Amino acid sequence: MNNGLDCPLPQSSPSDVVSLAHGEGSGLTRRLIQDRIKKVLTNPVLDQLGDAALLGECSRQVMMTTDSFVVSPLKFPGGDIGSMAVYGTVNDLLVSGAVPHCLSLSLIIEEGLPLSVLDEVLENIQRACEECGVFIATGDTKVVARGECDLLFINTTGIGFARDVLPLGPASIEQGDELIVTGPIGQHGIAVLACRNGLNFTPPPLSDSKPLVAELAALEPLMPRVRCMRDATRGGVGAVLQEWAESSGCTLTFRVQDVPVSLEVRAVSELLGLDPMHVACEGTMVLAVNSSTAKDVVTALHNAGFPCASRIGTARERDIVPVTCVGLLGQEQPFQEPLGAPLPRIC
Amino acid sequence: MNNGLDCPLPQSSPSDVVSLAHGEGSGLTRRLIQDRIKKVLTNPVLDQLGDAALLGECSRQVMMTTDSFVVSPLKFPGGDIGSMAVYGTVNDLLVSGAVPHCLSLSLIIEEGLPLSVLDEVLENIQRACEECGVFIATGDTKVVARGECDLLFINTTGIGFARDVLPLGPASIEQGDELIVTGPIGQHGIAVLACRNGLNFTPPPLSDSKPLVAELAALEPLMPRVRCMRDATRGGVGAVLQEWAESSGCTLTFRVQDVPVSLEVRAVSELLGLDPMHVACEGTMVLAVNSSTAKDVVTALHNAGFPCASRIGTARERDIVPVTCVGLLGQEQPFQEPLGAPLPRIC
Repeated sequence: MNNGLDCPLPQSSPSDVVSLAHGEGSGLTRRLIQDRIKKVLTNPVLDQLGDAALLGECSRQVMMTTDSFVVSPLKFPGGDIGSMAVYGTVNDLLVSGAVPHCLSLSLIIEEGLPLSVLDEVLENIQRACEECGVFIATGDTKVVARGECDLLFINTTGIGFARDVLPLGPASIEQGDELIVTGPIGQHGIAVLACRNGLNFTPPPLSDSKPLVAELAALEPLMPRVRCMRDATRGGVGAVLQEWAESSGCTLTFRVQDVPVSLEVRAVSELLGLDPMHVACEGTMVLAVNSSTAKDVVTALHNAGFPCASRIGTARERDIVPVTCVGLLGQEQPFQEPLGAPLPRIC
Repeated sequence: MNNGLDCPLPQSSPSDVVSLAHGEGSGLTRRLIQDRIKKVLTNPVLDQLGDAALLGECSRQVMMTTDSFVVSPLKFPGGDIGSMAVYGTVNDLLVSGAVPHCLSLSLIIEEGLPLSVLDEVLENIQRACEECGVFIATGDTKVVARGECDLLFINTTGIGFARDVLPLGPASIEQGDELIVTGPIGQHGIAVLACRNGLNFTPPPLSDSKPLVAELAALEPLMPRVRCMRDATRGGVGAVLQEWAESSGCTLTFRVQDVPVSLEVRAVSELLGLDPMHVACEGTMVLAVNSSTAKDVVTALHNAGFPCASRIGTARERDIVPVTCVGLLGQEQPFQEPLGAPLPRIC
């Protein structure tokens, strides 16, 4: 198994790795924070290093989201735990209708993690923050003994300010509404699985881990006509549809032939016996929109450089099952959720 | 070793424990969230279960703090990880000058954790929230395989609104200022250590884990004269003094005979070779105040029911070492930070 950011654990000397003393609150903790963490993530708010960060005045409604990241391995084709911890939380704010403002960052580190791995993760966090126009406002660092966690877990909690028009949410989905995805699905889960299991594809499947900033910008003028949006992370697009069907009381139907799936994801999914609809995305979202808006939404996404954006299905009056799929031969059947746990530690 | 909340892992049947599938984003995840987490923590904001919580309008400055809790065992005399995760984050907001408003809650659960343990932790979280006047606004749940974390890690990130007068911070500490602690020190670290190591004292040492709400209320009228406050968690009062000495450029001196230490903490500390000044508190804070204010601060705390509140030392012009202590015989000597890691997973 890949031990992290191309930097295996056992070869490091004691001074190159995180020790329990780094988490004890005394001098080594302050050095770790001052010389490594603050140095990379520096900004006027974080640099105060108070018990709480002063974010300043806000004239609009505050929105908050939290996410812990336990992805294994720490680095995978197309991304790493650091950038993903920023993008994932930024995306949760974006799809909820917020303008992301800042994040907190909490690290749980396994004793023995090479400091070089920590440095690389911090740099990826900072780069991702700059890309998304956010900053790390406050943080926390804990160290646990070997075997008590797996290298590194990260929590980011995000604060944003509500836009003037917020999506109504999944309860507002009505019969006749259309379902849209912004890009090819399942990319992230397949990339992590292939990497973790040593499946040597050339080129390897790439995660779609990225912020949804450009998609949201393209959809801005159409936002008053969007019912709801959701980044299709754990459980994939399938889990979003199940949840929306529950919330709306509609049956949601998607057409297999209209769902964009890359050749790589299709190949690996078949190899592993997975349905891409159940596999996590980290830079692709699902929207439910009024049917008269669907074409405009897809056109706007195509024009903004997302050629795979597709209308994949519709909402209709609830019949027996919450979600159905129309297969390649036109037959409709219930779409079941997986009962097992095929994809642990994808995010 | 104590496995948690009096509920050992191996005896549970599969349906009574958290499984990897509970973290996969599909039906079991939704059931866990709806039937257990939301049921206990219910409030109008959390109940929306959106990707981000809408906290509403705020007319004052927003403050933010984050903390991950990895304490082992999950339950200890005087507290547990759930209440501590609320109190710890609330206290960080309080000592920073904020009125706590709400928290996010992120759980990282080890596969096999008994659901009864999770339920008990959630109930303790809710009870602590009610005590502190805050609520859980949003959350996240991850499950990792056996051996990839240790039962349960919790992140709470807190949002509060700044009071009219904020403490100036440790850089404002001046020569002649006095140092005050609000209660007996080292209680929390000693309680966890004694419990973890099976030291059977009767009665066992109790953690001081609690919110600092009453202390802050008592000090409210004096707040404009307080330089800075800090809850003395990891590293204990000693780590706070080291950090404040660095920030202020003063040498801080404390008098051993004036530092309140309970008989139990003194006994266990001597047994384990620890200095209580290095041992974590979870409901005791340190203040630096102008010398003319010190007496009023201690009187206010005594009158509010904190009889152990004490003036323990002073700030003076920096000499060679940042922190010194005056021993029982009046001799002054440098106060060193511990180099090792005597107290992992105390919080």
